[in-house]
Amino acid sequence: MSLIDHTHSPSAQSWVDSANAADTDFPIQNLPYGLFRRAGSNESARVGVAIGDQILDLRLAAAAGKWSSSVQVLLQPLADGNLNAFMGQPSAARLELRHALFDALLAGSKQEAALRACLLAQAEAQMAVPCRIGDYTDFYTGIHHATTVGKLFRPDNPLLPNYKWVPIGYHGRSSSIGVSGGTVRRPLGQLKSPDAEVPVLAACKRLDYELELGVFVASGNELGTPIPMEQADEHLFGVTLLNDWSARDVQAWEYQPLGPFLAKNFATTISPWIVTMEALEPFRVPFSHPAEDPQPLAYIDSPRNRAEGGYAIELEVWIQTEKMRAAGEPATRLMRSNFKHAYWTLAQMLTHHASNGCNLQPGDLMGTGTQSGPEAAEGGSLLELSLGGKQALTLPNGETRTFLQDGDTISLRGYAETSNLAGGARRIGFGDCSATIVPAPQD
Amino acid sequence: MSLIDHTHSPSAQSWVDSANAADTDFPIQNLPYGLFRRAGSNESARVGVAIGDQILDLRLAAAAGKWSSSVQVLLQPLADGNLNAFMGQPSAARLELRHALFDALLAGSKQEAALRACLLAQAEAQMAVPCRIGDYTDFYTGIHHATTVGKLFRPDNPLLPNYKWVPIGYHGRSSSIGVSGGTVRRPLGQLKSPDAEVPVLAACKRLDYELELGVFVASGNELGTPIPMEQADEHLFGVTLLNDWSARDVQAWEYQPLGPFLAKNFATTISPWIVTMEALEPFRVPFSHPAEDPQPLAYIDSPRNRAEGGYAIELEVWIQTEKMRAAGEPATRLMRSNFKHAYWTLAQMLTHHASNGCNLQPGDLMGTGTQSGPEAAEGGSLLELSLGGKQALTLPNGETRTFLQDGDTISLRGYAETSNLAGGARRIGFGDCSATIVPAPQD
Repeated sequence: MSLIDHTHSPSAQSWVDSANAADTDFPIQNLPYGLFRRAGSNESARVGVAIGDQILDLRLAAAAGKWSSSVQVLLQPLADGNLNAFMGQPSAARLELRHALFDALLAGSKQEAALRACLLAQAEAQMAVPCRIGDYTDFYTGIHHATTVGKLFRPDNPLLPNYKWVPIGYHGRSSSIGVSGGTVRRPLGQLKSPDAEVPVLAACKRLDYELELGVFVASGNELGTPIPMEQADEHLFGVTLLNDWSARDVQAWEYQPLGPFLAKNFATTISPWIVTMEALEPFRVPFSHPAEDPQPLAYIDSPRNRAEGGYAIELEVWIQTEKMRAAGEPATRLMRSNFKHAYWTLAQMLTHHASNGCNLQPGDLMGTGTQSGPEAAEGGSLLELSLGGKQALTLPNGETRTFLQDGDTISLRGYAETSNLAGGARRIGFGDCSATIVPAPQD
Repeated sequence: MSLIDHTHSPSAQSWVDSANAADTDFPIQNLPYGLFRRAGSNESARVGVAIGDQILDLRLAAAAGKWSSSVQVLLQPLADGNLNAFMGQPSAARLELRHALFDALLAGSKQEAALRACLLAQAEAQMAVPCRIGDYTDFYTGIHHATTVGKLFRPDNPLLPNYKWVPIGYHGRSSSIGVSGGTVRRPLGQLKSPDAEVPVLAACKRLDYELELGVFVASGNELGTPIPMEQADEHLFGVTLLNDWSARDVQAWEYQPLGPFLAKNFATTISPWIVTMEALEPFRVPFSHPAEDPQPLAYIDSPRNRAEGGYAIELEVWIQTEKMRAAGEPATRLMRSNFKHAYWTLAQMLTHHASNGCNLQPGDLMGTGTQSGPEAAEGGSLLELSLGGKQALTLPNGETRTFLQDGDTISLRGYAETSNLAGGARRIGFGDCSATIVPAPQD
């Protein structure tokens, strides 16, 4: 599947004009899946594909379009709003639908007339969590994040001895995962400052975001049956942005010995469009550990993982405070980084997760952990950028931040660009992953 | 609800004869819910109530019995196999159905003739996980377990400073929860002995069980809205036995800094019948922390929790090795303990979980953590009973165990007895929670 097929041609254009804009996240080469309903309607949610600033409604398109019988079968669960059933299909079937949708949306397609009636402007849609997420696991593949944060929590022992051997992960909370565009309520929690004798229940004072990617599981595995590295890619469906909101003061007091719990499970925000592995194929990059580091054990190593296990995805965090919003000032960028710095690949996360026989299921979500770059300014959380709250950031309007204040909107953005391909640049974007902090309830 | 209503009368008898046996787990005072199908059939699963050695099939009973219109409405989702919908009902509605089922199964009921045709012998049923478990959280309320295990993992620092303030918990894996009667495959995992330079992938050598209770959430809460202690009981549905299988060698190497992951998520086994809070009502006991310990913060304290937040439930672990099975020897008991030793109550677990606004949903499962008693012989895991593997247990047939071997069957058992009530003893049991270890896959 390393061949660049025609769905990756940077020069391909769609009959949906907005998909041809240079700055769109959703050109015809992307075709991510999401779950939506018309805003304000009581319609049942249905699966759509983002194209430019529009959504191709797959319920309408399944009925109105001309499709091969095998594509018609693939469209059926999507028309019913059941993305999980499609996620569990073999990768060849998923690729078949991608090709059919690409051809149907391509400029000059005979399907244009029929499918134009199946479009809804994204501005008129209300997005939902795209699939049923049975289990959510968060990994810790950002070694620069792990090192910087480790120094704050354990000055003597920042990077634990297992880090370079084990793709460290832990279970997260599925129920509190939401899509971009909502609010996040500042949590109450037990807080104990180092010099206090006893903890108190109070509103979190060190509220933070974490810049991550989320990868969705395609077909799963039977309980007791590991997934070898050679088959890992087959089990990966696609990627979203993921904000792992974190209450740092709660975390510091509660996290030993069983890991973060209430410091994390009050909210996780994802971008609503799942960008498929097929769309990300041109952005694969070689993967390796530094030569002086331990090399991966055999069960999480493979020639393909070394040749192209990584993905070059630009990542950014933006902030707009309440004051900025009131003054009509746009969001300002806090940092940028790239997923290519991750210490473990998506395939290694998946294979490690199933290495003990743990059964993964279509629609399960795995976070990558915070994707900080190697430079101090590339920290993927305020905890890093403010040096544990010791050094405030100054925003362009003069406001300062160590941690988040009520009214702050945080937006994650991400994209990959095909400037390394012949035929011009083409951006595969993730859309927006944003949410706004609202005040804590009374304690 | 502290009044002992007629469904708790120890002298009540059922027209189902086996429910009147002194040693049954399922007298008419119990009436736990489970999901079943006729063994070997292709029937869709339906909800039933255990009564003696029989199951009252609620699909058949909804059609054949005479019920008030409000009970008929409550029975409908159960007849459809959807326990979650019933779990989300208010406690008054759940109690109404309990009363209706109790009256219908009581000796002398006019419903006997109609409902006799709705019974299936438990021996002919195949049980399933009783509801959709959206999220599974495991707590750590066993202070004797936490202290003993803490000594093994952190000799200098057995009980961390947060333990007596925070009902410590972490997220577990929903997908690998199974019901009693199956097998558990020994997991592969990264193992690193303290004197080895590098880890290896190999079959777990320190496979263990953990004796826990699991409590199911009834109605949930909106994201961002905590559940006060005064309302906690309303949100608890019922209890099962829970075996939190654990790979101790995997755990020791992987668990820092984010907690146990692959050491736990290969399997969790629960007993198939959810014993409702209504059935357990007579076994509530006063709850307090020792006077010299910190007292609970206000958000996890209430007069009712102090007066009767605990539950006196006897707990046991039994083992039958392959050799014992081959020789026709019965299982032998490894330990016994009681849930009344828990350091936090079920209500405190729930309220703490939602204290940051985390949304709980009907059918979510919370494990209590390992319920070891205060004595060394009351350890709820082999890690404790074998002093970290240093001292083997000798079984009656001369076999020894530090950790589990392939072919071992572990059974958890639990019951509460009404010997403290007037009118004779009556046992409310949990049924069996057992599984047998099968060999690891090839690494």
